[in-house]
Amino acid sequence: MSAASQDSHFVGWIGHDNKAIGNMKWEPYTPKQWEETDVEIAIEACGICASDLHTLRSGWGPANYPLCVGHEIVGHVVRLGNEVKHLRLNQRVGVGAQSGSCLECEECSQGLEPWCRRGLVGTYNGKFKDKQGNPIGASYGGYAKFSRVPAHFAVPIPDGLDSAVAAPLMCGGVTVYNPLRTNGCGQEGFKRVGVVGIGGLGHFALLFAKALGAEKITAISQTRSKEELARKLGATDFIATSEGPDVFAQHRRSLDLLITCNNNGDMPLDKYLTLVRPLGKIVAVGIPEEKMMPTPLAQLAFSGVFLGGSLIGGPGVIQEMLELAAKQNLEPMIEKRNMKDANQAVVDMEAGKPRFRYVLINEDYKAPDRAAL
Amino acid sequence: MSAASQDSHFVGWIGHDNKAIGNMKWEPYTPKQWEETDVEIAIEACGICASDLHTLRSGWGPANYPLCVGHEIVGHVVRLGNEVKHLRLNQRVGVGAQSGSCLECEECSQGLEPWCRRGLVGTYNGKFKDKQGNPIGASYGGYAKFSRVPAHFAVPIPDGLDSAVAAPLMCGGVTVYNPLRTNGCGQEGFKRVGVVGIGGLGHFALLFAKALGAEKITAISQTRSKEELARKLGATDFIATSEGPDVFAQHRRSLDLLITCNNNGDMPLDKYLTLVRPLGKIVAVGIPEEKMMPTPLAQLAFSGVFLGGSLIGGPGVIQEMLELAAKQNLEPMIEKRNMKDANQAVVDMEAGKPRFRYVLINEDYKAPDRAAL
Repeated sequence: MSAASQDSHFVGWIGHDNKAIGNMKWEPYTPKQWEETDVEIAIEACGICASDLHTLRSGWGPANYPLCVGHEIVGHVVRLGNEVKHLRLNQRVGVGAQSGSCLECEECSQGLEPWCRRGLVGTYNGKFKDKQGNPIGASYGGYAKFSRVPAHFAVPIPDGLDSAVAAPLMCGGVTVYNPLRTNGCGQEGFKRVGVVGIGGLGHFALLFAKALGAEKITAISQTRSKEELARKLGATDFIATSEGPDVFAQHRRSLDLLITCNNNGDMPLDKYLTLVRPLGKIVAVGIPEEKMMPTPLAQLAFSGVFLGGSLIGGPGVIQEMLELAAKQNLEPMIEKRNMKDANQAVVDMEAGKPRFRYVLINEDYKAPDRAAL
Repeated sequence: MSAASQDSHFVGWIGHDNKAIGNMKWEPYTPKQWEETDVEIAIEACGICASDLHTLRSGWGPANYPLCVGHEIVGHVVRLGNEVKHLRLNQRVGVGAQSGSCLECEECSQGLEPWCRRGLVGTYNGKFKDKQGNPIGASYGGYAKFSRVPAHFAVPIPDGLDSAVAAPLMCGGVTVYNPLRTNGCGQEGFKRVGVVGIGGLGHFALLFAKALGAEKITAISQTRSKEELARKLGATDFIATSEGPDVFAQHRRSLDLLITCNNNGDMPLDKYLTLVRPLGKIVAVGIPEEKMMPTPLAQLAFSGVFLGGSLIGGPGVIQEMLELAAKQNLEPMIEKRNMKDANQAVVDMEAGKPRFRYVLINEDYKAPDRAAL
C-alpha cells in the first residue's frame, strides 16, 4: 500500500479562511508524516471547544489554513507505531489540545508537557517536526474520521466512562481540573473553592471541585438565573455579582481558591481579590484576547492572594482526571451532535446555545469487537 | 504618680506636616492609654525604613500629624502589663511595623496578623481601640526614648544578636524573609531564588535566601555595579538587565521563586515572568505608589507562574527570622547614626546614601544589669 493510498482515510471538516465558522468543507487532507511513535485513531466522538471557534476565525492571530479543528477526541487505536509501549491496538483513547512536545526538557520530564521549553504542538493548527527538527507536516484535529498523533498524547479512557462524556473532558475538563488539583482543591486548607462563570468550563469546575473533596463550593455569576443549576452541579453557595457591592463584603475571604472561567481584561480583579483568604490563590483559565489586565499591585500585598493562569494539562493529569471522572460517575452536561452537522453545531456554539458542551458523534463509527481488546 | 507624670518620659522626634523630613522636632507626646496587655520599652536602637519617609511626607495619603515614625525598634522592657505572659521585665525585645490586630480572627489565629480581618494598627500613624472599640490613642514610633505597645507585637531578641543588627530586621528584614520562607525558599523544588533590586530589602533577601538554603541565588540589577557586593551577600549568579534582551533568554526559567524589591507599576513583569519556571512564583514586596500594574494575562497562563505580594510578617515569623539570623550570624550591612541626628539621617536616607540601612542609636541608653535579667 503506498503512502498516499494508506492515508486516504483522512477526511474531515476543513476550514479555508477566517469565514470558516459554518463554512467548513468535508474534504481529504494530508496528515503528519507517520512515525513509529505515533498512533492512528478511528474517531468516535469529538467535543467542540471555544478554541475551535477562535482558531477558525483567526481570532488568536492568523490560522494556518487549510485547517481541521477539534481537540477533544475519543476513539480507538487502529494503527500502532512499533515504538509505542503504553497502548495497544483497538484500545480506546482520548487526545486533548496538545499533540506534541520535546518530551526531554525539565517540564516534560515532570509531567508539565503544556509548558514544554521547546513549545507545544497543538492538536490542530500546529506544525510537527522530527527529531532532527525537519518539518513533517501540520496537525489536523478531530472533526474528522481519523486522527494521527504522537502516542504520548493519546490517553487510555477508563472502562465505564462514556466516550461522549470523556471527549469534552480532554480539553475543557482538564483546563479546570488541572488548576484545581495542582493548587490543592479539597486538601487541608483548600476546602473552600469558588468558580466564576457558570458555562462550559465553570460547570466542569463545579463538578471537579466536588469530586476532589471541596466542602464549600461557591458559584459566582452575574445573576441568579443559574443558581439552581449550579447547586445541582455541586455548589453549596452562590454569589450573584449584580446584586451590588455588598455581596463581595458578605463573602470576604470566604475562599481558599478561586477559578475564574470568564477570564478577560475587564474582570473585576479588585473584587475577586477580596473573596480569597491571604495566601489563597486566584487562577484565571482560558486565554483572553486582551493582552493586558490592570492589576492592583498594592492590593496583591494587602490581600496576600496569589494570581496565576493555567494551561490545559499533560497526559498524566488527563489520565488522573479521567479515572476520577469514571470512579465518581461524573455527569457533565453535554449535547450530542452528528459529525455531519458540524457546521451548524459551530454556528450554534458561537451563539452560546449549548448547555454546556457539544460533542460531535461519527454516526458510522464502529467500536472494535470486545474480543479484539 | 499621676498618669501625666508617669508618661512624661515619652519624648521623640515629632513631624508636624508633610515637610517633616529634616524638620522633625524633639518633643513630648502622649502615648496610647495603658492597658495591662501592653509593655513599655526603653529604646536602644531604631532602624530607618523607607516607610518612615513615605509617611512623614504623606506620600501614601495624608498622615496623622503630629507623628513620630520608626518601626524597627529594639530595646528592653521597663514596664510589663499584668496580663503579659510571654515576656519579662528587662527582657530585650523588638517591635516591627505592626503593633495591633484583633488577635481573634482566622488570620490572627494562624499567625497571619498583618492580614487581620479587622485591620492592622501600624506602629506609627495608627489608632488604637480598646476591646469595646473605643479610641485609646494614636500609635507613636521609635524615633524616641520609649515605646508603649501591645505586648503581642514585642518579640524577644535572641542573645548573640546585636541590637543594631536586629533593629532593621524588624521591618525590612521580615518583609523579604516572610515571602521567602512562606513560599518554600530552600526547600525541595524551591532552591533557585532570584532577587530583583539590590538595595535595603534586596540585600536582606540575598542574605536570607542563602540562610534558608537556596542553592542558586540570582541577583538582578540594572548594571554590574553591585555584582561584587551581591556575590559577597550570597548571590551565585548575576543578571544586569541593561545588557540587552538576550540576558532574559539566557536565564529563561532558571528560577523557582523571584522576589522583586523594586516594586512599581513600571516593572517589566513580562520579562520577569520568563525567568521563572512553571508553577514557580513571583512575589513583589513593598507597596508602590502606582495603583495599577499592567499584567499580561495570557502570559500568566503560558508561563504558569503565580504572582503575589507580601506584607511584613507576624510576631511568630519575626521570631523565627531572628533565631535564624542569630544562629547563622547574619551580617546585614548597616550604618549606625546617633538618634540626636535623626533629621540629617532621614535626609541622607531620602538621598539614597545608606549602604544599606541606617539604625538610630540612643547614645544614653542604659542596658539593664545582667543580674536583673
